[in-house]
Amino acid sequence: MGTLEMNSDEIAISFSHSLSPLDPEEFRRQGHMIVDFLADYYQNIEQYPVRSQVEPNYLRDRLPKSAPYAPEPIEKILQDLHKDILPGLTHWQNPNFFAHFPSSGSVAGFLGEMLITGFNVVGFNWISSPAATELENVVMDWFGGMLKLPGSFLFSGGGGGVLQGTTCEAMLCTLTAARDRMLKKIGKERIGELVVYVSDQTHFSLQKACQIAGLNRDNIRVVPTTIGFEFSLQPGLLRSVIEADVAAGLAPLYLCATVGTTSTTAADPIGPLCEVAQEFGVWVHVDAAYAGSACICPEFQHFLEGVEGANSISLNAHKWFFTTLDCCCLWVKDPNALIEALSTNPECLRNHASDSKKVVDYKDWQISLSRRFRALKLWMVLRSYGVSNLRNFIRSHIKMAKHFEALVNTDNRFEIVVPRNFAVVCFRVTPCAIKKHDNYVPADSTPKKQDNYFGETKDDVSVVNEFNRKLVDHINESGQAYLTHAVVGRVYIIRLAVGGSLTDYRHVDNAWNLIKDLTDSMLKLC
Amino acid sequence: MGTLEMNSDEIAISFSHSLSPLDPEEFRRQGHMIVDFLADYYQNIEQYPVRSQVEPNYLRDRLPKSAPYAPEPIEKILQDLHKDILPGLTHWQNPNFFAHFPSSGSVAGFLGEMLITGFNVVGFNWISSPAATELENVVMDWFGGMLKLPGSFLFSGGGGGVLQGTTCEAMLCTLTAARDRMLKKIGKERIGELVVYVSDQTHFSLQKACQIAGLNRDNIRVVPTTIGFEFSLQPGLLRSVIEADVAAGLAPLYLCATVGTTSTTAADPIGPLCEVAQEFGVWVHVDAAYAGSACICPEFQHFLEGVEGANSISLNAHKWFFTTLDCCCLWVKDPNALIEALSTNPECLRNHASDSKKVVDYKDWQISLSRRFRALKLWMVLRSYGVSNLRNFIRSHIKMAKHFEALVNTDNRFEIVVPRNFAVVCFRVTPCAIKKHDNYVPADSTPKKQDNYFGETKDDVSVVNEFNRKLVDHINESGQAYLTHAVVGRVYIIRLAVGGSLTDYRHVDNAWNLIKDLTDSMLKLC
Repeated sequence: MGTLEMNSDEIAISFSHSLSPLDPEEFRRQGHMIVDFLADYYQNIEQYPVRSQVEPNYLRDRLPKSAPYAPEPIEKILQDLHKDILPGLTHWQNPNFFAHFPSSGSVAGFLGEMLITGFNVVGFNWISSPAATELENVVMDWFGGMLKLPGSFLFSGGGGGVLQGTTCEAMLCTLTAARDRMLKKIGKERIGELVVYVSDQTHFSLQKACQIAGLNRDNIRVVPTTIGFEFSLQPGLLRSVIEADVAAGLAPLYLCATVGTTSTTAADPIGPLCEVAQEFGVWVHVDAAYAGSACICPEFQHFLEGVEGANSISLNAHKWFFTTLDCCCLWVKDPNALIEALSTNPECLRNHASDSKKVVDYKDWQISLSRRFRALKLWMVLRSYGVSNLRNFIRSHIKMAKHFEALVNTDNRFEIVVPRNFAVVCFRVTPCAIKKHDNYVPADSTPKKQDNYFGETKDDVSVVNEFNRKLVDHINESGQAYLTHAVVGRVYIIRLAVGGSLTDYRHVDNAWNLIKDLTDSMLKLC
Repeated sequence: MGTLEMNSDEIAISFSHSLSPLDPEEFRRQGHMIVDFLADYYQNIEQYPVRSQVEPNYLRDRLPKSAPYAPEPIEKILQDLHKDILPGLTHWQNPNFFAHFPSSGSVAGFLGEMLITGFNVVGFNWISSPAATELENVVMDWFGGMLKLPGSFLFSGGGGGVLQGTTCEAMLCTLTAARDRMLKKIGKERIGELVVYVSDQTHFSLQKACQIAGLNRDNIRVVPTTIGFEFSLQPGLLRSVIEADVAAGLAPLYLCATVGTTSTTAADPIGPLCEVAQEFGVWVHVDAAYAGSACICPEFQHFLEGVEGANSISLNAHKWFFTTLDCCCLWVKDPNALIEALSTNPECLRNHASDSKKVVDYKDWQISLSRRFRALKLWMVLRSYGVSNLRNFIRSHIKMAKHFEALVNTDNRFEIVVPRNFAVVCFRVTPCAIKKHDNYVPADSTPKKQDNYFGETKDDVSVVNEFNRKLVDHINESGQAYLTHAVVGRVYIIRLAVGGSLTDYRHVDNAWNLIKDLTDSMLKLC
């Protein structure tokens, strides 16, 4: 190992394995080993620190400088996996993982991935595997139906859905479609005049999509939000920004509205925003990456009210819909807009089915040519759990988040910073609790002008933020829970996102006790 | 099933399953079932027609109109998989699959995917799972070393590698990096003047990447190739095209050179092309999607000669390097060019490790934020097979292709159209064999001007092409083998691509016998 030279023993080993890299019996033997490895991993997952505690560059010195020359047995590789890789994992499936948004694994999602990988088809067009395309057509209509999307987004109603890798791809594809449609109308030389609208809470991926699509970086309008409207984008403000651009001779292009923002799970008012956008011919994309999944429950469907006015909507089934990474569901009303922007028709892919125009060739709905058979895992999830259990799972996460919220409310040193919409709780240690302690010395004790949405002065803010930032560090360094943060209105908030497939009430309780204990110590030390 | 209503039985079923979607013992039970399902599938894979024989829209009527309300047992789902999905699969792992390029599965690649999916980490930045980033750094240096890439493409030499989904993404990322670097120099308003260079054999994905990146579609220069140079891009021609653009005041931007083109596996002369490109400050990307893998064998490394003059190089490990889809390896000399074009630094991802600048955050090297732990499958493949067996696998495919080539040469009704470089054989039934038969009536028997690179007139070409096209149809309709075609120099060629992980000499022999027999019948019918 670790050298490109070989000796005669190695040659012997090497040739004994050389017949087929996909020998069915070897597949069976090793496949069963990994199933057991992973089942044991889930069983023991709580023994690992949730967030990896390794230092940068921990791995390079542990591994050889070059690939092994001779084959190595699976037993040895699994030993090294335990020894070298597991310590460097942040365990997203650990039930004490409350960071970012969940990356929800499930038995059905895992089985789906096994089948996808086992069949290993490259489904760029219909003929390359008709089932891959057609099952995708079917499950996207099923899922759209569960969300009560208007028929115009479904194949059965002239629209359609496609599975992409991530929301970033969905944004880039729809942005490209919108851009080309607009440039066709106004002339391609005006690309620098196109304007994109987001709020200050919109996911930063949209900015990246604009960069890649060659749009003018100066023409991304970031409309501010306030706590008064729970950080949702206000249609009136949007209108005035668009009007100013129109007055300046620019070309309003694309609005990204969000249901469930990354910082606080805020929900933009889709219907009223679409009304404004439609007036100006602006393409509306609804980014429901996280919270879209909750809209399979009737009590959350109102968050999508007015979506019939949008052009596209996407959600990440790998976040909160149990498919495992990656699986972003994108529905569009006008597939031709995507196809016009993204299609290529090379001779080498010509076939009777495509020529007949009776089939969908998904290569023309996405960035890449090659595509995995992702529909299989969404199908496995939908059938294994059914609408009923999927709703149960999501509701149980929301109940656990409510439970945590209630715990926070029992302790007046803490506050809920933004009202909870779904299964993310945004909280912090209050300025008041921190001020009571000795080291809190405002630079000047005369009353000051409000400095943030929360009525705190700049000095307050920095001391309070710093305290909460340190609390998060301590939590994450403990290895017992992993939480991440956001900053809204210049205030640092701690986010607790419930949604892990193995998470139960006891994990939420433990997290709360850990937070309280660490806060106790920090306040005592002050 | 098939309704969103529920009855009390369904509720009972639904709640019995509702505790955890990732119960370890249920995972173990169902995981073992799927391993056996797939091992049996590989064992029996030859019984399925290679290319699916279903008709468009075969699936929609077989499946319910909506997702099931109640959960369904895995046993029932697997029955339906057999009944409804398998007939619609084109079996890329079938050893009689010789179409396109291989999509090479392997035990190690499959195990890697199981682990990726099992851990299900979202590795956007270092802290999100340090092992995911660091193992990727290590294996990309290992693999680069096996290819004898110059040190400047490796982390150890100031460059670095990243795993993307597909070559399309690698092209789009490097194109965006090149574009932004150039526009920084010449001014962003000149985006419409940037020019991209390809040959008429370059993969069509590059054109799509240009479309997405907002480049001027009129500024893609397609340099013609000829059979005299085996369809490789000629540096002299490239120079004259670039010079004309410079003279016209345009800004030469990006050249895509290919090692192993899709139609005929032609190899562009990398060194001389880089010399021309460098003179004009053009970014050179080497697309070695298919043939790059062969360059781990010393006897093929000359195809990458001169790559030290390029800016980036990519290959698809899912094509011919046994990782399963998707796994595109991209190396760049100047990671900062990627990072400047693709980075975003939102507050919600701030962490000490990223702030320290001691770590790689791969989100800034690719289109998407979220990313799977793909390094794990490349690591599994490299260790399970070692350099020695990986070379053996590739050499065995090339030997089988040579064997097929020899068989074609034994029958003078067939000809090898373009010399074989790797494991793809380009052949056809000759005009001569077809002309001998009655139905071949040239419209005019007087000598005509050459109409294609092969010295055939237009009428010859269309009759001969049509014959070969029908032959391919017959082969693929038989279900016994699957081959695809290309058209070069207006000549229709049949491609036989060896590379399936289960393919052996007997499959190649069977394919040849099938082709001969079908040709016999077709010629008899003439």
